Amino acid sequence: MVKQNCLFCNVANNSMESATIFENSEFKVVLDPFPASKGHTLIIPKEHIENIYELDTESASRLFALATHIAKVLKNTYDCDGLNVLQNNGAAAGQTVFHYHMHLIPRYSDDKVNINWETVKFEKEQLQEMASEIASKL
Amino acid sequence: MVKQNCLFCNVANNSMESATIFENSEFKVVLDPFPASKGHTLIIPKEHIENIYELDTESASRLFALATHIAKVLKNTYDCDGLNVLQNNGAAAGQTVFHYHMHLIPRYSDDKVNINWETVKFEKEQLQEMASEIASKL
Repeated sequence: MVKQNCLFCNVANNSMESATIFENSEFKVVLDPFPASKGHTLIIPKEHIENIYELDTESASRLFALATHIAKVLKNTYDCDGLNVLQNNGAAAGQTVFHYHMHLIPRYSDDKVNINWETVKFEKEQLQEMASEIASKL
Repeated sequence: MVKQNCLFCNVANNSMESATIFENSEFKVVLDPFPASKGHTLIIPKEHIENIYELDTESASRLFALATHIAKVLKNTYDCDGLNVLQNNGAAAGQTVFHYHMHLIPRYSDDKVNINWETVKFEKEQLQEMASEIASKL
């Protein structure tokens, strides 16, 4: 359940100090020690799972109900101009700590957060085929 | 419930064509017509809500259970190198369509997606004070 030498296992189980907003038996909610902005929060499952592929549906439900509540509280606390929910899976997606965590990043007009992409062009027919292919695996 | 001239109300209620992966009474799951990568998917509540501040806890639970399942299916379909869950609230956070939607963005080593930030420095004591302030509003 707890993985040795895992940073967020240590945070979640209080063997490492953190700025804690909330915890229950399943989740720990802390301020990111290296924040992108004021109020940058992490929702961390206490059980060691690496990524969304290891997150079961019931835990996902409870996690996002909690995240949604915390997002509203962050908005009320800091009157931020915006807020990103971000959760990275895999080094190719920018994951650096390989214990699942969801970022809530309050945004301010003068912050230094960059989220953007170049659009990839697909024809309408290609998109339809891809949607059918994905749907067939649901 | 449906807002006139809202792009995603039109998508969700089939008055605009889209590459549909899944739908039920509450959500529509489609491929983003302007994708960041192959398999870039949007989870859209059918009811018009603008952002996470208007998302109720029960809908949040069902939405993220669905999103988590779709993420696993995307991984299985495209064997992507990574995957970002991203949900933007407010223009300052990069929201461009003001009807709530969650992005699932499969990542590939050669994609053109940028997600990064400059860290803001807070002292440990400041983080503790901020965590207490947020916790007091839960």
